[in-house]
Amino acid sequence: MSDRVRLRDLGITIGVHDTGHNNAITDVSGVLVGHHTLISGSGALDPGAGPVRTGVTAILPNAGRIFHERVTGGGFVLNGAGELSGFTQVVEWGLLETPIVLTNTLSVGTCSEAVVDWMIRNHAGIGDEHDVIIPLVGECDDSWLNDSQGRHVRAKHVFEALESATSGRMPEGNVGGGTGMVTCDLAGGIGTSSRVVPVDVGLSYTVGVLVMSNFGNLEDLRVDGAPFGRWLAKKWGDAIQRRIAYGSIIAIIATDAPLTTHQLGRLAKRAALGVGRCGSIAAHGSGEILMAFSTSNVVPRELHQKTYRLEVLADPYVNPIYAATIEATEEAILNAMCAAQPMTGRDDHHVPAIPYDDLQSYMRRHSTFDP
Amino acid sequence: MSDRVRLRDLGITIGVHDTGHNNAITDVSGVLVGHHTLISGSGALDPGAGPVRTGVTAILPNAGRIFHERVTGGGFVLNGAGELSGFTQVVEWGLLETPIVLTNTLSVGTCSEAVVDWMIRNHAGIGDEHDVIIPLVGECDDSWLNDSQGRHVRAKHVFEALESATSGRMPEGNVGGGTGMVTCDLAGGIGTSSRVVPVDVGLSYTVGVLVMSNFGNLEDLRVDGAPFGRWLAKKWGDAIQRRIAYGSIIAIIATDAPLTTHQLGRLAKRAALGVGRCGSIAAHGSGEILMAFSTSNVVPRELHQKTYRLEVLADPYVNPIYAATIEATEEAILNAMCAAQPMTGRDDHHVPAIPYDDLQSYMRRHSTFDP
Amino acid sequence: MSDRVRLRDLGITIGVHDTGHNNAITDVSGVLVGHHTLISGSGALDPGAGPVRTGVTAILPNAGRIFHERVTGGGFVLNGAGELSGFTQVVEWGLLETPIVLTNTLSVGTCSEAVVDWMIRNHAGIGDEHDVIIPLVGECDDSWLNDSQGRHVRAKHVFEALESATSGRMPEGNVGGGTGMVTCDLAGGIGTSSRVVPVDVGLSYTVGVLVMSNFGNLEDLRVDGAPFGRWLAKKWGDAIQRRIAYGSIIAIIATDAPLTTHQLGRLAKRAALGVGRCGSIAAHGSGEILMAFSTSNVVPRELHQKTYRLEVLADPYVNPIYAATIEATEEAILNAMCAAQPMTGRDDHHVPAIPYDDLQSYMRRHSTFDP
Amino acid sequence: MSDRVRLRDLGITIGVHDTGHNNAITDVSGVLVGHHTLISGSGALDPGAGPVRTGVTAILPNAGRIFHERVTGGGFVLNGAGELSGFTQVVEWGLLETPIVLTNTLSVGTCSEAVVDWMIRNHAGIGDEHDVIIPLVGECDDSWLNDSQGRHVRAKHVFEALESATSGRMPEGNVGGGTGMVTCDLAGGIGTSSRVVPVDVGLSYTVGVLVMSNFGNLEDLRVDGAPFGRWLAKKWGDAIQRRIAYGSIIAIIATDAPLTTHQLGRLAKRAALGVGRCGSIAAHGSGEILMAFSTSNVVPRELHQKTYRLEVLADPYVNPIYAATIEATEEAILNAMCAAQPMTGRDDHHVPAIPYDDLQSYMRRHSTFDP
Repeated sequence: MSDRVRLRDLGITIGVHDTGHNNAITDVSGVLVGHHTLISGSGALDPGAGPVRTGVTAILPNAGRIFHERVTGGGFVLNGAGELSGFTQVVEWGLLETPIVLTNTLSVGTCSEAVVDWMIRNHAGIGDEHDVIIPLVGECDDSWLNDSQGRHVRAKHVFEALESATSGRMPEGNVGGGTGMVTCDLAGGIGTSSRVVPVDVGLSYTVGVLVMSNFGNLEDLRVDGAPFGRWLAKKWGDAIQRRIAYGSIIAIIATDAPLTTHQLGRLAKRAALGVGRCGSIAAHGSGEILMAFSTSNVVPRELHQKTYRLEVLADPYVNPIYAATIEATEEAILNAMCAAQPMTGRDDHHVPAIPYDDLQSYMRRHSTFDP
Repeated sequence: MSDRVRLRDLGITIGVHDTGHNNAITDVSGVLVGHHTLISGSGALDPGAGPVRTGVTAILPNAGRIFHERVTGGGFVLNGAGELSGFTQVVEWGLLETPIVLTNTLSVGTCSEAVVDWMIRNHAGIGDEHDVIIPLVGECDDSWLNDSQGRHVRAKHVFEALESATSGRMPEGNVGGGTGMVTCDLAGGIGTSSRVVPVDVGLSYTVGVLVMSNFGNLEDLRVDGAPFGRWLAKKWGDAIQRRIAYGSIIAIIATDAPLTTHQLGRLAKRAALGVGRCGSIAAHGSGEILMAFSTSNVVPRELHQKTYRLEVLADPYVNPIYAATIEATEEAILNAMCAAQPMTGRDDHHVPAIPYDDLQSYMRRHSTFDP
Repeated sequence: MSDRVRLRDLGITIGVHDTGHNNAITDVSGVLVGHHTLISGSGALDPGAGPVRTGVTAILPNAGRIFHERVTGGGFVLNGAGELSGFTQVVEWGLLETPIVLTNTLSVGTCSEAVVDWMIRNHAGIGDEHDVIIPLVGECDDSWLNDSQGRHVRAKHVFEALESATSGRMPEGNVGGGTGMVTCDLAGGIGTSSRVVPVDVGLSYTVGVLVMSNFGNLEDLRVDGAPFGRWLAKKWGDAIQRRIAYGSIIAIIATDAPLTTHQLGRLAKRAALGVGRCGSIAAHGSGEILMAFSTSNVVPRELHQKTYRLEVLADPYVNPIYAATIEATEEAILNAMCAAQPMTGRDDHHVPAIPYDDLQSYMRRHSTFDP
Repeated sequence: MSDRVRLRDLGITIGVHDTGHNNAITDVSGVLVGHHTLISGSGALDPGAGPVRTGVTAILPNAGRIFHERVTGGGFVLNGAGELSGFTQVVEWGLLETPIVLTNTLSVGTCSEAVVDWMIRNHAGIGDEHDVIIPLVGECDDSWLNDSQGRHVRAKHVFEALESATSGRMPEGNVGGGTGMVTCDLAGGIGTSSRVVPVDVGLSYTVGVLVMSNFGNLEDLRVDGAPFGRWLAKKWGDAIQRRIAYGSIIAIIATDAPLTTHQLGRLAKRAALGVGRCGSIAAHGSGEILMAFSTSNVVPRELHQKTYRLEVLADPYVNPIYAATIEATEEAILNAMCAAQPMTGRDDHHVPAIPYDDLQSYMRRHSTFDP
């Protein structure tokens, strides 16, 4: 359905900061995103055969240069009931040196292997004159809609996502890794948003967030703080199917602000607050993992000097970037929901799309309120 | 002014879970709270002389028994730009063995010394047949209103707070440690709230939260998600003074749910989401420290066996307690604001109280909304 | 070479606690270990063709029951320049629910996928009536000896390791995942050791450690504290090849002591001290990840009650287990070295075995010393 | 007794790196150390009266400039059964902005208050035009020898330590905060050591460590890896009194290497390995807290630009500094023991000094060994 739109197209705005040009993580210069989406079959689950509702999303932090021009990174685990392979090394070294791939839980191994393959093809010295690498592969569980046992993601799909990655506007909703994802019992998946934060005369920084969103109950959903989910749940009553298991959310935060590893870890914590503002309680079974990187602070693989100089944004000026990160995280989740189409998957499990009319009328009242 | 009320008295409700009898941390059986409030002087800051707008709040986790009947505890640092002395040991051992005292930043040392004094008076064996203790003393910075340099909190005030601690309803707002505190540019301070969560037939658990709230800008303030602060800031314009430095928040979560240290650490993380829902961005200079304890899991100082049995709530049933903790944290902050009186302090710095009429009419529209 | 022995066979003892029956992680009842070793080819590196010096080691925490009878776990990252996929969830939930597989860095994805496959074969409900799983796959880098680019570990090798896992004595040295590993420039790999700690009359606990050891420079190596590596490096001079990149170590600690997640995290920290005692400086590029589990505290997948009782060893009695863990970690590393045969791998890179004669005569003097 | 010496004076050397000029933390330019020692009374414990065996040690990271010229810092908690007030903020902000004061556990509050007092006296704007501060006060428990209940440390003693702080050689052993401390059942307390690490032609960095050492059992003590404590315990048998409760250790690591907060946190972890090499098992009740700072990376309180440039030592060159930190930590502990005099305290509790003759003859054999 080409009629799905983004949150702002519905007249709903989150926060006070301006968005970047595309209101997407790709507004951070150098960040590329690609998806490969797998949809086939319907009806009863036949493990290995389908139905298939899954895929891969790839994020290249600085175009194709990440192996040689590593970027500063950091992260935070709000709830570790999930996996982002390679995260341990990012937190330890404060560097990203591979792309980030997002997929369903049971396909993490396949994707990790595929990224290794792809990296070796591009950098023949890995495991030889260069160190080995540990790919960044994040997951959420799409088995409510998808034959996740079947592990339909293959290496070629990962290559496809990596190689089709581009800047500019990007598809959202049930695409790529987010194809079979559910957010607050509605269709969810991949969403993105960005903010541009003026810091000084003639100086502004961009922060962009991409989420693979798969968490929550309908009752929990909040839109710009308003308890829209509670209202909708009441309206719909039993007319909506409820997922039994809990999902998760992975959020990737990109910025061109010159932040250190330590500052990026703190930034990732603020993204968690954005997840919370959408209504997440970080349920026991819902993994919330957040990773941030700065494209401004590159640490080359080949260093020619023993010390180097890192540019650092002074902490007293970081607050607007915190606020922008919270806003962008919240809007990225809502963009995932707005862009996602209704999806019927395995065993005829069905997730409706967020209803625009209800959302708009509900929010119009909230936002135009003047006592 | 005896005309200050609580959030629910204004017809505003946070969340879906029932409150405990007093809607206070003291609804968790055994938890006692006491305050000592210091207000004197006015006008220009005269360090050492005043004006004085500060105090002490004491929380006894299980009446007077904490030294011998230690309770299980855990915690989370959302933003460590603050101090809760003794927190390191709670996180390491998973036990509380002293009361918790909350005060202003520069009085942490005085209060720590006073708690040592008080504990020794009650347990003469400390440092002799018993181990030494490390008091739990948390702080926020009240120097916008208070002569914090003057450190007007004295040991006797700490004793007073400890010894007057009671169960039942408790004063809120600008009392005790929260006397000179500011929340989103409005009067803030001490607030509390509780929830009772049914877990099984005939089985429910209580979770109570007490905050010393001192964070944020007016624009950030959200009430049940609604951006009341942004609206109020617009309405008031320049009519409100703005604090220059950022504050902090300490949240203490008590529950009778049988949770382990590890589970309590996770619970404390959810309280951080509650802080975020009120509008906090966990600003660089704003320390957010959250500590949780369970009165159900007592570990006696004198163990008579080498192993003991700990009751544990199975994790799949913990989600309602997570939700309840978020709700109670949010409401505790708002109770602090509703209960707080307008306060003029040093250098005629003034923080208004949250305006009931505006709040009520604003929220009435939000909460009765039906598109 | 069948003539390789264990450290104690050389008359060298680490620490004061008794070993278990097999001085192996398998002394903890229920723990099974299996290996699959891949050795083929020689000479120049021909990526994809060889030489092959790698493999897989599998640890089943409680025989085949881990999916339904999850065991309590915790962990510690001394240096996160490595990967143990699934570790994030262990630390969050405090539970292991899959076997642990150890392999080379670039084969983590393959092994993860294979474990998923194997788990699904054994538990058809995964991703259907049961949650999905996140396999525990740890790595070190064997590319000094092995064609790691070639990723010669295949799914069938993982199955082989999992299905051949047994209790009792186990091969050590350059076997399984440790085949191509190097410790302090000598042949290293898989090693194990155990201790039995009396805690009360008639009550003792067993702690067993298995390491995949791949760290350090020869100069760093210490044996029971004695700087044997420094002495040997001097003796050998240029006669020994030096690995350029740094390795890592993964340590898995099993115990039947009833410890909680929180206590197991603390236990894992002590294993790090054991690594340090062998001479590790936790070099920048050397990932040290340590994970502990208790077979005594089982949390079934299907809980029939909302609360359960966990047995807990009181902390004041945990010190001997700390000491035993340090000892067993140290001895496991040395067992890996003693059992490992000299190994020539890619590009004729060669690592000698630890020389028994030198080691024995050096240590005999140290241990029989009486001034 | 002026006859106490340092470890190297006994012909015993730890590690391979050169020491700084004074083999002390003060070899890092700008670092000043001062002590105030309190020794009086003897015989039975009379709480409040004595015997007194305690004191204060003060470390000024960059002479008197720390408030305005804050230095980069980080830390690690090996075992949190202790307290270093203010540590939370160091870890969060990555900055030190007060001196560090070390004392006995029950005097933390007094010292914290005194540092506030002293800082205000030197910087009248604290709590007014400047933010408030949170002093860094670390502790170990000296109640085996000292009337710790009596809290004999007074504010004036803290001022004394702060104001007498100097560069150059410094007293060690039972002085300052370490006066009543015990290490492995022998007299312990304050010790220091340093290393100079060449990194490039004409470029070397200094790392210095100061410990307040109060941990362990005699049996655990290792000297350069050799189990001297086990041997001595056997020799002495019942002739030595054993402390019942466990102690702790605080280690402060200073360096002029340009390290970020994140790198300093990693460095502090390596200091923990140095503690382990002396025999520590990080016993349950023994708090091991380690904090590192870099005098090279100063972040002024008054920033004139929104971004600044931080010099960073590239991680591949950090390993010698790791090794040097481990060495210096180990030697600092041993210097504390060598310098400490035998001490008799409350209730005639007695800790002997480490016996030089035994130590020398034992170590001579170990170090001159050549098989």
